[in-house]
Amino acid sequence: MEAAIHDIVSSLRRLEPPQRAEALLNFPPWEALAIFEQLEAPLQEELLHWLPPEKVDQLLMDLDPDDRVRLLDTLTIPVAEALLASLSARERWLTQQLLSYPQESAGHIMTPEYLALSPALTAAEALARIRSQGHHAGPLQVLPVLDDAGRLLGLLTLSQLVLADPEQKISGLMVANVPRTTPETDQEEVARLIQAADLLALPVVDGSGRLLGLVTVDDALDVIHYEREEDFARAAATQPLRRPYFSISVFELTRSRLVWLTLLALAGTLTVQVLTVFEGLLEQVVTLSLFIPLLIGVGGNSGAQAATTVTRAIATDDVAGVAAVILRETRVGLLLGGALGLLTYLPILLIFNGLMAAVVSLTLVVICTLATLVGSGMPLLARRLDIDPAVVSAPVVTTVVDASGLVVYFLIAKAVMDI
Amino acid sequence: MEAAIHDIVSSLRRLEPPQRAEALLNFPPWEALAIFEQLEAPLQEELLHWLPPEKVDQLLMDLDPDDRVRLLDTLTIPVAEALLASLSARERWLTQQLLSYPQESAGHIMTPEYLALSPALTAAEALARIRSQGHHAGPLQVLPVLDDAGRLLGLLTLSQLVLADPEQKISGLMVANVPRTTPETDQEEVARLIQAADLLALPVVDGSGRLLGLVTVDDALDVIHYEREEDFARAAATQPLRRPYFSISVFELTRSRLVWLTLLALAGTLTVQVLTVFEGLLEQVVTLSLFIPLLIGVGGNSGAQAATTVTRAIATDDVAGVAAVILRETRVGLLLGGALGLLTYLPILLIFNGLMAAVVSLTLVVICTLATLVGSGMPLLARRLDIDPAVVSAPVVTTVVDASGLVVYFLIAKAVMDI
Repeated sequence: MEAAIHDIVSSLRRLEPPQRAEALLNFPPWEALAIFEQLEAPLQEELLHWLPPEKVDQLLMDLDPDDRVRLLDTLTIPVAEALLASLSARERWLTQQLLSYPQESAGHIMTPEYLALSPALTAAEALARIRSQGHHAGPLQVLPVLDDAGRLLGLLTLSQLVLADPEQKISGLMVANVPRTTPETDQEEVARLIQAADLLALPVVDGSGRLLGLVTVDDALDVIHYEREEDFARAAATQPLRRPYFSISVFELTRSRLVWLTLLALAGTLTVQVLTVFEGLLEQVVTLSLFIPLLIGVGGNSGAQAATTVTRAIATDDVAGVAAVILRETRVGLLLGGALGLLTYLPILLIFNGLMAAVVSLTLVVICTLATLVGSGMPLLARRLDIDPAVVSAPVVTTVVDASGLVVYFLIAKAVMDI
Repeated sequence: MEAAIHDIVSSLRRLEPPQRAEALLNFPPWEALAIFEQLEAPLQEELLHWLPPEKVDQLLMDLDPDDRVRLLDTLTIPVAEALLASLSARERWLTQQLLSYPQESAGHIMTPEYLALSPALTAAEALARIRSQGHHAGPLQVLPVLDDAGRLLGLLTLSQLVLADPEQKISGLMVANVPRTTPETDQEEVARLIQAADLLALPVVDGSGRLLGLVTVDDALDVIHYEREEDFARAAATQPLRRPYFSISVFELTRSRLVWLTLLALAGTLTVQVLTVFEGLLEQVVTLSLFIPLLIGVGGNSGAQAATTVTRAIATDDVAGVAAVILRETRVGLLLGGALGLLTYLPILLIFNGLMAAVVSLTLVVICTLATLVGSGMPLLARRLDIDPAVVSAPVVTTVVDASGLVVYFLIAKAVMDI
């Protein structure tokens, strides 16, 4: 049925909100739930306005706690609280548990429902337990093994359990030394650990090792998908749309881009001020203005390259020594600038003159080094200030490098041309 | 043991290649395999040079076919062929099957090993079959159901099978109408379907519906992780490093950035040519040069915003009408340019003069519209030409928009200032 549902979801996406709600009401409850689960949270939110209240309550009740939390996150607090109040006591408790952890943390996205095994059971007893209690117990692919106090002893996959000798004890079957995380850990770090260590699920435990929930591999897939949409938006100084392109009005599209565009334009006025300072120089040597876009382009690009490399290195490796990174990047910048400087010297000498060639080549060396230094330093500084290093995106680096690059250019021109 | 292994992998990453090989030899074979599996392909490749040949053959033999293919992809053809020759006939056959499909396709990354069930079995019989044959049969979380000709009838999860009434037939338990894909489908599309439809595995079938293999949810996680690294690199005009930052020499880092930086700089010389054409105008009105970086900055940013939005829309939704997208984006560009033009008019009027204010404001309107048009049109054009729309990254759009933006600026200046 999943294919059918995925196709239904695709066609529902293209409808207007009232028609979408009407269409959803035509499906039997379990199918409507499966469709609702696959819609993006903003579309789910819209549906809440258009569906009859009793249908809303039923859908919300039937959602898994982690899917419910994802929906509640998009709502205003009064709406979310009204919906929470409509849940059964148990479902409300499960949901509030997740909501109590910060957004985008392991605790916020975990599945608080799981079927736990005791280490003293045999494989056959454990399978019997799963048959009798597993029907609404959350994901069964990975089964946590807990002691009497609820502390995590190990994990067992359902495959391992099925393949095991029926008489073997769970304590001998489970994998004891499994990675685990705290509920406060950032969701991206959790997803990365699941990916790097090839896990089916990562247990979330409290300070005394008691199991709170599981983050499964499909949760990790959702997280990385979500973070990737955010990366894209950030790299282009816009906001993630999180819903189909054609469901967004031209006005909303404009708004999602205008804030960043205006901020960057405002920061860009710094270049106007720098150029005003050197206006006299430009009047004397108009040729200098011909290279402005080329030079700041190279600066922006090399700065963005360094920023991206260092941001990824921070995210995926252990970048311990700040000084070592800065030193390496400075050397890379010098090499890049040196190479470009050498490449441009002869053409400019032939087309313009020796002085211009010297100015542009020297500026390329300094601008590349400066841009690489700034580009690599900014994510490291952001991390030090406890800001997500990924906010230091290409447009931000470019804007910072533009004005300083121009200052370098004119100072070198003044020195070389002896003006 | 997985935690231990993940930690061992992290510390091995920090060693030099010969020491890494030496350390790996100290672990028992199954542990060495688990460690090897979690290392990045370039580090695996290095290890092949430093490990004794018999150890290399053993590791390669024990790897899952899809992991083996990922490693072979990084090797030169003669080395890969020599290693293939060392495999057993069955493993070589499985591996060559995957290698016969294009890189980054579903067929190339799928698991060709699976345990298939017949629809006539009861749940109890199926479980007995899994117990007897499931030990080296690939992933068991999802079990394909095949007819006698090997055609896919449906899927069943191991959880569903365990929870089912032992007497029930597989034909009644399986989910029949499941999404499936062809071996040629791009891996990113496959991963997106697995994510959007919440699948544990996506079956890969040939033209007559026969099952070729399964792409599992953890394969999808690897794909999205890999594509994300590629996005990052592309957004900053560099190459994905695919290995720890500190294991890469300064020279290699430079090389990974120099090609793109030089190409963009070469394309940037177009701006020098445009400015040379308008040098006379710049000599008469030096003030015009003051706004060059600001204007091309705004153009680059709004072009990158449009390119990213449309690239994502192509990737995630069904962007059918090219004309509709272009029309919407043109309206967004006009609104953005209009807003920025209005914002800048008064300050420039006060600081400079009315003519400059009119020129800059008008240019902002035209540049934003032009950049949004180019930025949205390029990914659509790329798709038409069967190129991945994602190659139209911010640096490429910016470079195209820079030169044309300058032409617009000077033409408007000529018209408004009547020169």
